[in-house]
Amino acid sequence: MTMLNIRYEKTTAPKELPKEDNPLKFGTIFTDHMFIMNYETGKGWHDARIVPYAPLSLDPSAMVFHYGQEMFEGLKAYKTEDGRTLLFRPNKNIERANNTNRRICIPEIPEEDFLDAIKAVVKTDEAWIPTKPGTSLYIRPFVIATDPFLGVRPSDTYMFIIILSPVGAYYPEGLNPVKIWIEDEYVRAVKGGVGEAKTGANYVASLAAQVKAHDDGYSQVLWLDGVERKYIEEVGAMNIFFKINGTVVTPKLNGSILPGVTRNSVIELCKTWGVPVEERKISVDELYEASNNGSLEEVFGTGTAAVISPVGHLRFEDHVMQVSDGGIGELSQRIYDTITGIQLGDIEDTFNWTVEVK
Amino acid sequence: MTMLNIRYEKTTAPKELPKEDNPLKFGTIFTDHMFIMNYETGKGWHDARIVPYAPLSLDPSAMVFHYGQEMFEGLKAYKTEDGRTLLFRPNKNIERANNTNRRICIPEIPEEDFLDAIKAVVKTDEAWIPTKPGTSLYIRPFVIATDPFLGVRPSDTYMFIIILSPVGAYYPEGLNPVKIWIEDEYVRAVKGGVGEAKTGANYVASLAAQVKAHDDGYSQVLWLDGVERKYIEEVGAMNIFFKINGTVVTPKLNGSILPGVTRNSVIELCKTWGVPVEERKISVDELYEASNNGSLEEVFGTGTAAVISPVGHLRFEDHVMQVSDGGIGELSQRIYDTITGIQLGDIEDTFNWTVEVK
Ligand SMILES: Cc1ncc(COP(=O)(O)O)c(C=O)c1O
Ligand SMILES: Cc1ncc(COP(=O)(O)O)c(C=O)c1O
Repeated sequence: MTMLNIRYEKTTAPKELPKEDNPLKFGTIFTDHMFIMNYETGKGWHDARIVPYAPLSLDPSAMVFHYGQEMFEGLKAYKTEDGRTLLFRPNKNIERANNTNRRICIPEIPEEDFLDAIKAVVKTDEAWIPTKPGTSLYIRPFVIATDPFLGVRPSDTYMFIIILSPVGAYYPEGLNPVKIWIEDEYVRAVKGGVGEAKTGANYVASLAAQVKAHDDGYSQVLWLDGVERKYIEEVGAMNIFFKINGTVVTPKLNGSILPGVTRNSVIELCKTWGVPVEERKISVDELYEASNNGSLEEVFGTGTAAVISPVGHLRFEDHVMQVSDGGIGELSQRIYDTITGIQLGDIEDTFNWTVEVK
Repeated sequence: MTMLNIRYEKTTAPKELPKEDNPLKFGTIFTDHMFIMNYETGKGWHDARIVPYAPLSLDPSAMVFHYGQEMFEGLKAYKTEDGRTLLFRPNKNIERANNTNRRICIPEIPEEDFLDAIKAVVKTDEAWIPTKPGTSLYIRPFVIATDPFLGVRPSDTYMFIIILSPVGAYYPEGLNPVKIWIEDEYVRAVKGGVGEAKTGANYVASLAAQVKAHDDGYSQVLWLDGVERKYIEEVGAMNIFFKINGTVVTPKLNGSILPGVTRNSVIELCKTWGVPVEERKISVDELYEASNNGSLEEVFGTGTAAVISPVGHLRFEDHVMQVSDGGIGELSQRIYDTITGIQLGDIEDTFNWTVEVK
């Protein structure tokens, strides 16, 4: 099945599959196996293997614990009604992973090997893919720097690991508008930094603002640019879209925001549908104005976890902007239905976005 | 000896001490024991123990591998000629550790417990403190987030660990001026971010520029501010000082640079000596001018690893600025001799900077 030479060591103590009726709390349950491959300078990536899911044993001086040299990705596998297993645009994640790798000096992973590895481990634990509406198998590939060395330089050894987690619907009650906090004190990332890479640095930087927002009853933080502090960047783990006066607007990829796979899919869908879409700078002031004059029709976040998250209202400092009637916009719903339909094989995949695991 | 209730599990297989004649490569050799303490929400910090140095076993989904929630510190223990063991300003590191912890949502560690832990583990492996000139025992306290959970939020569990590494003189050939590369493309940190915290994020962000600088024959990167891209921030793992026309100038703590312990010691020394010292913004242009008109008398980095690193020349884009005659400045040497003299107990510690491990 695979070009990559993978050694298999199957578990002798398979875990019980989660009961279909229990809600699957995101990111808490892991399957029976994981994929691992090592890197060593001079030797390259080697020893690809699928082994029982188990703790990693690392020297306390392993660089990942100290200097944050770590890359991760997130994508999903879905079970179709006719029993096929589909991945959604895995090549986009693989491409982004290697962009991250380059930015943080981790050796690249050959794209085909990466895809083979995902397919092989998903195939191995295929029985773990849940089938209830809204559920899927979350796939988490990541690389960590493992040199036992205290000093700042790129590591000479790495582990590339893929773990799998069956996940429930992100919003068990269905698409529900969320409240978003526009952050004016903390900054997530800045041009020249690692904002466009998927690496721990951007997430640790976001925690304090997230705690502040939660304490105030907001579920997500919307970041502003770190230079002028007035242009919209993205949400903690989602890109953001605004429908203003019939036009869909989203921040341009500028070096400090993550190029989301869902973001890209939404843009392609809008283009296909003839919905005008613009990638450009959007200031908080523009949002105020649109919200005040009634032209802010829809706001939604995009990301692998929830696909589409409608935003009901945004707060910046002491101002609250209500989005239209605070419900779910027509376009948001249409995009959600289309993307999830393609992911589940219910809608014809004219874009060739899905990849079957055979 | 200690207020903190520490459980001891001594190694049954002590390693051989490094030969005094071998150069101790920085950060590669670790002692027989380490300190560990766990945290759990609701339970607080608990189970303080000194155990044999050994690999850590962590779930592949442990948050530290994905979201970079990790704090570290670095300080040193020195052996005096009369056999005492001295720490240099450990309370400064402890205070900074808790500042980092607060910024990245790690629970604080009680200051006295922190100091007790350092003393206890250093005492345990006291035989590992090297005694040759310039050598010391590097102490690396760090905290990692250990929740087995894929999702962005502060962890509910942590490990606080202290490991020890005997280290040689940072510059085995003595104080030698280094060449510094002023970075104009990448950015290390920005106000509102985590630049003033000692966390992996700042170091992973620095790797690409460091590789670029090394490839060009420069040993260190000097960062500019992320907003205007013209003010001096700090070096990869050092703060930076300039002596211009008799006045010592160093960038003001602005939220994006690390408040170095050595930096603070240098400022205090200068004040005591009556050397004028200013903490303020310094632009690259000002450096050019000073270098051109001959008023750039000395440049040096400050940090725990090397104490003082004289800088012989700086490069920004296509311009190279030579610092005075490219040798070691008088003040640089005096500061180096004084601080290392105090650290080793050779010079009277009128500042009360050293803390004895009894
Ligand atoms: C910071 C950030 N922005 C945006 C996204 C959305 O990207 P994608 O659509 O590829 O999941 C994510 C999640 O992956 C993210 O972590
Ligand atoms: C980014 C950075 N700046 C400055 C310093 C110097 O700080 P200190 O003098 O406390 O070692 C360090 C090293 O600790 C550092 O990592």
